[in-house]
Amino acid sequence: MTLILALDFGGTKLAAAIVNVGSREWLGYERRLSPAKADASTDLEIMRSLIYSLLQGTKPAAIGVSFGGPVDATTGTVRLSHHVAGWENIPLKHLLEDEFGVSVGVDNDANVAALGEHRFGAGQGYDSLFYITVSTGVGGGWILNGKPWRGAGGMAGEIGHIVVDPAGPVCLCGKRGCVERLASGPYMAQNAREILENVDALAASRRVPPRHKERQGGEILRGLVGDDLTLLTGQLVSEAAAAGDDLAKEVLHKAAWALGVGIGNLANLMNPQRFVLGGGVTKAGEDFWQVLQQVARETALPEVDFEIVPAVLGDDAPLWGAVALTSI
Amino acid sequence: MTLILALDFGGTKLAAAIVNVGSREWLGYERRLSPAKADASTDLEIMRSLIYSLLQGTKPAAIGVSFGGPVDATTGTVRLSHHVAGWENIPLKHLLEDEFGVSVGVDNDANVAALGEHRFGAGQGYDSLFYITVSTGVGGGWILNGKPWRGAGGMAGEIGHIVVDPAGPVCLCGKRGCVERLASGPYMAQNAREILENVDALAASRRVPPRHKERQGGEILRGLVGDDLTLLTGQLVSEAAAAGDDLAKEVLHKAAWALGVGIGNLANLMNPQRFVLGGGVTKAGEDFWQVLQQVARETALPEVDFEIVPAVLGDDAPLWGAVALTSI
Repeated sequence: MTLILALDFGGTKLAAAIVNVGSREWLGYERRLSPAKADASTDLEIMRSLIYSLLQGTKPAAIGVSFGGPVDATTGTVRLSHHVAGWENIPLKHLLEDEFGVSVGVDNDANVAALGEHRFGAGQGYDSLFYITVSTGVGGGWILNGKPWRGAGGMAGEIGHIVVDPAGPVCLCGKRGCVERLASGPYMAQNAREILENVDALAASRRVPPRHKERQGGEILRGLVGDDLTLLTGQLVSEAAAAGDDLAKEVLHKAAWALGVGIGNLANLMNPQRFVLGGGVTKAGEDFWQVLQQVARETALPEVDFEIVPAVLGDDAPLWGAVALTSI
Repeated sequence: MTLILALDFGGTKLAAAIVNVGSREWLGYERRLSPAKADASTDLEIMRSLIYSLLQGTKPAAIGVSFGGPVDATTGTVRLSHHVAGWENIPLKHLLEDEFGVSVGVDNDANVAALGEHRFGAGQGYDSLFYITVSTGVGGGWILNGKPWRGAGGMAGEIGHIVVDPAGPVCLCGKRGCVERLASGPYMAQNAREILENVDALAASRRVPPRHKERQGGEILRGLVGDDLTLLTGQLVSEAAAAGDDLAKEVLHKAAWALGVGIGNLANLMNPQRFVLGGGVTKAGEDFWQVLQQVARETALPEVDFEIVPAVLGDDAPLWGAVALTSI
């Protein structure tokens, strides 16, 4: 029996699993939420307990690690975490190699998930693909010639921060109309909230009845949060859109449009065979996928062929990718 | 002596050159304009005469070919030419291999020029780069891991048709605000012409003096074409901008902005070390380069490093790339 140990430092959760080489079923699987005031030390301590609980004294042949933040994959050093303090320049690969005495591979979650889908999921048999996760953020990972393409400085795949609408709303990164600004869950919620607040402000300031047709929709969305707009989430926007709320549909279509333009531009630039899309927002329903597919097709040149398919590994993509990382 | 024969089917011109392996100086160089009513047969006939004049009975060790249009590089088959009729599905590699009895490599001009700059020009020592030509069209070619990346269907590199301004003017491809629509020479000329024509139409329709400040500039540009706006070219727009014409500057800055956004987006997506820019429009002067560099830097994430440098091989980039193509 040759065991592989796969670790996922996910920012808000930690997961570990073991598998026999060649198998597609976990022999063991453990998962914990990060505590509210987690730092790198507590994350490592929790992960250590998961590992020892899984291994029970056996030794893995190799360890693969997915980390939710920028990583120097050549040295296996974490640059930082956007969610958890204290991860600046932590030599995670060396720490684990010293502790367990086996070879360790570390990469960021988007690259690792891309590798997971390529080896075990929706990308099997495709030598060139781009994996996109659309969730609290928007990120991506490349497979070219069957191998990860990480870029000269390990920064490739940042589809979340390409500009698709220079007249769009301002993103946290400072630019206008980034894909992430329009398509991430939290930003979709913010976009819906801002429209609803504007409608309220307009109604409050009006002295005479409106001459033009009112902006439609929003009632279902308001109902879902009992009129407390601070409770809005990307998922609720998707649910309201599926239930026929026009305002929620508008926000969701804009998200799908942004992703579609990004994917179409990428198809023209890199001409990969497949785009594999995972993350919560991509579960928003048929309408979302239909807009996304159509906009991507219209944005790409007619001669540029590609497919856009849903990811199949779900939350386990980073763990399966970590397994794949050990055999590169 | 090991001779390499390099051929450039450029659309409007044909060029051929021979060089000793390892040398950086042409032993012989011939060039002709395509006749006005050229087709694939006349192009091949002219190229044949250039070749026999160069070779004088000697036999090259290999032939590299740059073709100005889509090519299936794996089979060396030309798909079509956008400039010259009759090139549909011509097996150029096989034709030349049959005639000269040596191995032949064929690829499109953007990929070949990228390879030329990588091996002999501004990309020497850089394993990952994107070459962009900004001329009558806007195209590009990738070098990743020191080798051309052509895409799954040989269509990679089409930076000309990525959308950077969805509210921009309509491109020949049907989309709005493509890089080529804003930055190619002919489109820059069209953009300047349309602004000048609008100014004229506005002046003609006006019965009372304008209350607002008039749009500035255009006088120098008009002077360069003796008021015949059909004579405008991208180069004249650049010249007028350099001479201080505000309207020409506006058009040129928009072109530089479009390229800057495209390059910044690309840096985020692929994180190559270098961007190498060639083609007539990139000779538009310091102002153009300054806007381009600044916009690209602002569009890329702060952590993404890259350089944008001018190509150095000029019109010979496809020929030097053809030489490099024979040794892949």
